[in-house]
Amino acid sequence: MNYKMLYRICGRVLLLEAAFMLLPAAVSLCYGEFHTALAFAESVFFALCAGLILGFLLSRGAEKGFYAREGLVVTGLCWIIMSAFGAIPFVRNGDIPSYIDAFFEMASGFTTTGASIIPNVELMSHGTLFWRNFSNWIGGMGVLVFLLAISSSKSKDSGFTVHILRAESPGPSVGKIVPKMRQTATILYMIYIALTVLNIIFLMAGGMPAFEAVCHAMGTAGTGGFGVKADSFASYSPYIQNVTTVFMLLFGVNFSIYYLILMKKLKAAFFDEEVKLYFSIVVASSLLIAWNIRGLYGTLEETLRASFFQVASMITTTGFATADFDAWPVFSKSLILFLMIVGACAGSTGGGMKCARVLLLLKSLRRNIKKNLHPRTVQVVNINDREVSEDVISNTNAYLAAYFTIVVLLVIILSLDEFSIETNLSAALCTFNNIGPGLGKVGPTCNFSEYSNLSKIVLSFAMITGRLEIFPILSLFSRTTWKKV
Amino acid sequence: MNYKMLYRICGRVLLLEAAFMLLPAAVSLCYGEFHTALAFAESVFFALCAGLILGFLLSRGAEKGFYAREGLVVTGLCWIIMSAFGAIPFVRNGDIPSYIDAFFEMASGFTTTGASIIPNVELMSHGTLFWRNFSNWIGGMGVLVFLLAISSSKSKDSGFTVHILRAESPGPSVGKIVPKMRQTATILYMIYIALTVLNIIFLMAGGMPAFEAVCHAMGTAGTGGFGVKADSFASYSPYIQNVTTVFMLLFGVNFSIYYLILMKKLKAAFFDEEVKLYFSIVVASSLLIAWNIRGLYGTLEETLRASFFQVASMITTTGFATADFDAWPVFSKSLILFLMIVGACAGSTGGGMKCARVLLLLKSLRRNIKKNLHPRTVQVVNINDREVSEDVISNTNAYLAAYFTIVVLLVIILSLDEFSIETNLSAALCTFNNIGPGLGKVGPTCNFSEYSNLSKIVLSFAMITGRLEIFPILSLFSRTTWKKV
Repeated sequence: MNYKMLYRICGRVLLLEAAFMLLPAAVSLCYGEFHTALAFAESVFFALCAGLILGFLLSRGAEKGFYAREGLVVTGLCWIIMSAFGAIPFVRNGDIPSYIDAFFEMASGFTTTGASIIPNVELMSHGTLFWRNFSNWIGGMGVLVFLLAISSSKSKDSGFTVHILRAESPGPSVGKIVPKMRQTATILYMIYIALTVLNIIFLMAGGMPAFEAVCHAMGTAGTGGFGVKADSFASYSPYIQNVTTVFMLLFGVNFSIYYLILMKKLKAAFFDEEVKLYFSIVVASSLLIAWNIRGLYGTLEETLRASFFQVASMITTTGFATADFDAWPVFSKSLILFLMIVGACAGSTGGGMKCARVLLLLKSLRRNIKKNLHPRTVQVVNINDREVSEDVISNTNAYLAAYFTIVVLLVIILSLDEFSIETNLSAALCTFNNIGPGLGKVGPTCNFSEYSNLSKIVLSFAMITGRLEIFPILSLFSRTTWKKV
Repeated sequence: MNYKMLYRICGRVLLLEAAFMLLPAAVSLCYGEFHTALAFAESVFFALCAGLILGFLLSRGAEKGFYAREGLVVTGLCWIIMSAFGAIPFVRNGDIPSYIDAFFEMASGFTTTGASIIPNVELMSHGTLFWRNFSNWIGGMGVLVFLLAISSSKSKDSGFTVHILRAESPGPSVGKIVPKMRQTATILYMIYIALTVLNIIFLMAGGMPAFEAVCHAMGTAGTGGFGVKADSFASYSPYIQNVTTVFMLLFGVNFSIYYLILMKKLKAAFFDEEVKLYFSIVVASSLLIAWNIRGLYGTLEETLRASFFQVASMITTTGFATADFDAWPVFSKSLILFLMIVGACAGSTGGGMKCARVLLLLKSLRRNIKKNLHPRTVQVVNINDREVSEDVISNTNAYLAAYFTIVVLLVIILSLDEFSIETNLSAALCTFNNIGPGLGKVGPTCNFSEYSNLSKIVLSFAMITGRLEIFPILSLFSRTTWKKV
């Protein structure tokens, strides 16, 4: 293990976080919240000191060697450290008195989960609200990817860039859009920023105040789902709800599709099998849910608006709500649990298992039936007319096995708190898939504050493990990680 | 597809079933239940006619060609046909008036699930009770394996025997105990019969009436779990409960272990990794549950007896109960759901995912963490000091993927009936893993009768799909199955 390189990257990330926290400090000042501004200033100071010590003092003379192992470990560690330092301002300004609660909230923010322990967000200061949603935005695309995008182009440590991008980006295979990783990171962030700005403009056009529009756009972009209103999106106009439905869905699409569109490769963009599956699931489950809840709303328009909004929010793992879907019929609730598991497209800011994996799963299941029937013929799996390598299939299956194992373990640990199995299962799925609200006691009208501290810590790690797609966090617990080579 | 061969085997199975049904007819006569005896006689006649037509008339001139595809399809079809014909006597004697209910009950019997739609078994005739439990016993080891064991040794159609044994026997890989498949089948049945007789003797030594002892021993041997009392085992003496705990656990062990013991290869038998994992899970979860329910029972002995009995019943997927575990704390209930998923050892009569697969899953998960950390080193998975081929690992992962997909689909279909998600999830797991009682509305004090007919049919197929480990049934729905070669 190249410890010094590890310190250096963690240090840089902390310095970046210190810079990020200047923004909520400024927002607090604008709104005259001096106490909160001071809390952020203190936190900036802590992060700065720790960042300088780690990034320069302890990492002096770091050697170049940087491999898959270092990439996984540094990604896992950075995300834990970021949540740990990002939680400090909440405790210092008194908005969230318990540090464990604050850590949960921040892990939820960076992992774009959007699960909250705050009973009423409307009592929070503007600085706190801004920082929560800003963390959604940062976490959506990834802090290390950001570091990559702004790092000097002179550094040619390709091991560093490839291994980190692979560890931090969601999806079964990381595609480089352009040959250079750094450029890929920059292009992704440009698209991300452009879409976010577009979202802000559309929201403000519907009469949403600037602060709320910025916060919500950041929450939508990261598919995080932190809101600034106690009832999430329920009291906003139909126009704003529909705009948000559309943008949630847009941020759940693989970003390389946007690059293809920009490059005018429209055919490849619109015939992508994953994107087709994604939109098919959205339309099919929205219509099924609309049929199932037909009696609950006044008009057809209202019913469809509610079902499409909730479906978009769940499949993209955003977690906004316009309706208390915990009160919907069981069939709709089961479909929502299903959407939670499926998740958005690979290469988007959304969480979950990813449509690409579901596609691979279904195709390899079909292949396996054929293989059982005709053991001697060779069967290959094709996606977008290209053969998928057996390695990718076996990795996807391994991911699924890990996913399954972790969810079962989570449900068992959570059950020590004696809530219902429905609550625990949905809490496990919601945090691990980075969604936010679940069913029962963690439903859209409730929050996670009733869970014990043990459960909150476990759920915080579940969020980070889910966001980083399991292996960066699991690798922290492997003995071979810490061995000297 | 070799249709004539398919008819021939289905026909033989029906003739076998006709012979089997003579037993409950005789039992009914002994107890003076002439109406029931007549119902069984009629059913024997139906099965005989259908068996003769299929097995001799339609299959005349069948060619030898018998491959994996034929093995899968014939196994899937035979199990459906057996349940369809076995359900007739229940309708004819009026014990279960609805044919769909009777089909569910019989599918539950043959697949050794033990889920029931009968509100009070004590109102049933002796013939019905005997037939239900006899189906548990037959289904435990497999009808086709039985056919194999009694078939003439002259037939050397090895394709037939291998492909059928592989399709009908549970577990990731079918080991031949001895080089010849037919002998393997015979040895397995001998061990099975010996253990069942031993169980009957132990039960009768505790004062259980002969009829109940025979029925319960058959239910235990097949890990089926049909009882003859409304409260399952709750009102029996502690001795009988403990004997049943021990025998349930014994029938959950891989039968090749008993063969090893008979051959005096004790070391190989006792150091088998799967068996060690199986007993470790049993002891660990029994103690955890005993700790969790410590306040509910009077004495420590009672607490331990209740926890060990329920754990043995769940992990072996038998489904007997001495306590209403639906009223236990959520932690215990979550552990029980976990045990349902794990299941017994491969090569036993139990269902579930099988300990061998769990072992493989955990080991390959560990391997994958290492592979992620050190992409360039080769990592192999060893079980019992032998390297597991990548093919077996990939098959296990494919099985898991199919498992996961089917459970999700089942929960969504069941949710149309508007019971709670806990009820639906446990009903899906309980039928698919061939356990029997679940939680909530399908808990140990309730039954499956409240589900709609659609759900009952779906659950019947879930039981058969689970018993045959997915692929024989899925292959019935594949287009390539029915193509001419």
